[in-house]
Order: sequence, then structure tokens, then C-alpha cells
Amino acid sequence: MTAYMLRPIGRVESALKDRASAPRQPDEGAPDAWLIFDDQYVPALDGLSPGADMLLLTWLDRADRDTLTVHPRGDAARPITGVFATRAPDRPNPIGLHIVHILAKTGPRVHVRNLEAIDGTPILDVKPLLTPDR
Amino acid sequence: MTAYMLRPIGRVESALKDRASAPRQPDEGAPDAWLIFDDQYVPALDGLSPGADMLLLTWLDRADRDTLTVHPRGDAARPITGVFATRAPDRPNPIGLHIVHILAKTGPRVHVRNLEAIDGTPILDVKPLLTPDR
Repeated sequence: MTAYMLRPIGRVESALKDRASAPRQPDEGAPDAWLIFDDQYVPALDGLSPGADMLLLTWLDRADRDTLTVHPRGDAARPITGVFATRAPDRPNPIGLHIVHILAKTGPRVHVRNLEAIDGTPILDVKPLLTPDR
Repeated sequence: MTAYMLRPIGRVESALKDRASAPRQPDEGAPDAWLIFDDQYVPALDGLSPGADMLLLTWLDRADRDTLTVHPRGDAARPITGVFATRAPDRPNPIGLHIVHILAKTGPRVHVRNLEAIDGTPILDVKPLLTPDR
């Protein structure tokens, strides 16, 4: 199959420095963080406002892409499950999805609340939240 | 910046054959469709069950990746907005996000309700739904 090339559009700047210290979910102690976009993408940020909740897509560049099954949450007591039924970061295309609340925005820098992505994580995209109703 | 390579894990099989006929949102008349995974990923599908709602990530391979601003929904009456504040398919990394309801699953074939992706669209990932509460 054809492969496709991702172009990172920026990076996460965070106090979280490695996977071992990263919480599994944002409500488990993730710190506020900065999204630092490349200057060329500033026009694409127009319309993002402090106070809004958005979806952030990242590339989990430290993931193992050959993992197809896991014990959910790394808990050996849970039965082995296909990665597509879980949020495990190790998966064939390790795209991270994060709901972020925008605290502030200055040019290419966006400050967000409670982000569980590690410092340096490449940013792929930002989108409005999906809601099952629409 | 480093670029990253996506590996499509399957394809959408749908009666929607081109962008012009695709609805903008799934509740605007999208048909049921099949997700056809490559055989090697069948183990990763273990745990996906008919009746479940999941997030499907696709690669919108017909998108224009140089678009940074749009009139939302292609409506010239709406003010120009950065693509990251919209769901426009044309964007630097055209990753499609779809909430799908699983109707049936047989080996590498998964039947889903109301999918607005076009026939042949590459599949990147499947994940549990995100909920703002967790």
C-alpha cells in the first residue's frame, strides 16, 4: 500500500520529559503545556480562542509501531486485547488524540490545560471537538 | 522537522465514489460502509464488537495539504477562518476523524453505519471514543 508522509506542524513544550512520568489520561495529573506551532501555520490558527475546547492530534514518536495486542493499561490481570479496542500508545500509526482547553494564544504559541503528551511531541493537527450528536 | 511515515492498515469500501458526492457530516446522508483491514491487523481488531461506537481515523488522500484558511463549509458568506478551527478536509495533515457504529465484524471486515469517507480512503487507526469527562 502507498505510504503517506506526515508533516509535523509544531511541537509540545511540557514539563513531562518521558513516557514513564506521563499520566495515561489527562485527568490523572497532566500539567498545562504549550503548543508551539511553526510560524508558517499561524494563519491556520486564526479562529482558535482562549476558552475553547479543541481536539489536538499528535504523533507519539516514541511508540512501538509493531504492537498489535496489549494488556489494557499495562495491567497483566486484564485480558490481552487488540490495540484498536484500546488507547494504548503502541500501535501501527501512533496518532495521539487529546481534548485540550485553550488558556491563551500568542502568535504561534497556544497554552493549554492538562496535556498528557511528552515534551517535544510532534503536533499534527487541531480540530473542533467531535460530538456523537452531529 | 523530521517527517513521519503513515502505514495504511486498510481501506474504506463505500458507495461514495468522489468528494463531490460525499456529505460534509455523517448525519447528512452518509451511507453504511465496510472497513477492510489488511489481514496482518486482524489481531489488533480483537475486542471490537458489533454495537460499539468507535473513532475511526482515516487519511483524506484527496485533500489539498497547502490550504491554511477556508470559508467554513465552503460558504463564501462565512468569514475566512484558519483550518485548525474547522473540520475542512484540506489541511496540512488531512487526518479524517469519524465516529462509527459497528454493525458487524467478520475477520478483517467491519461493517459500520453512516460513514462520510469516500471509497478507497486509507484507514490509519481505530480507537475508543474520547469523552470530555475523562
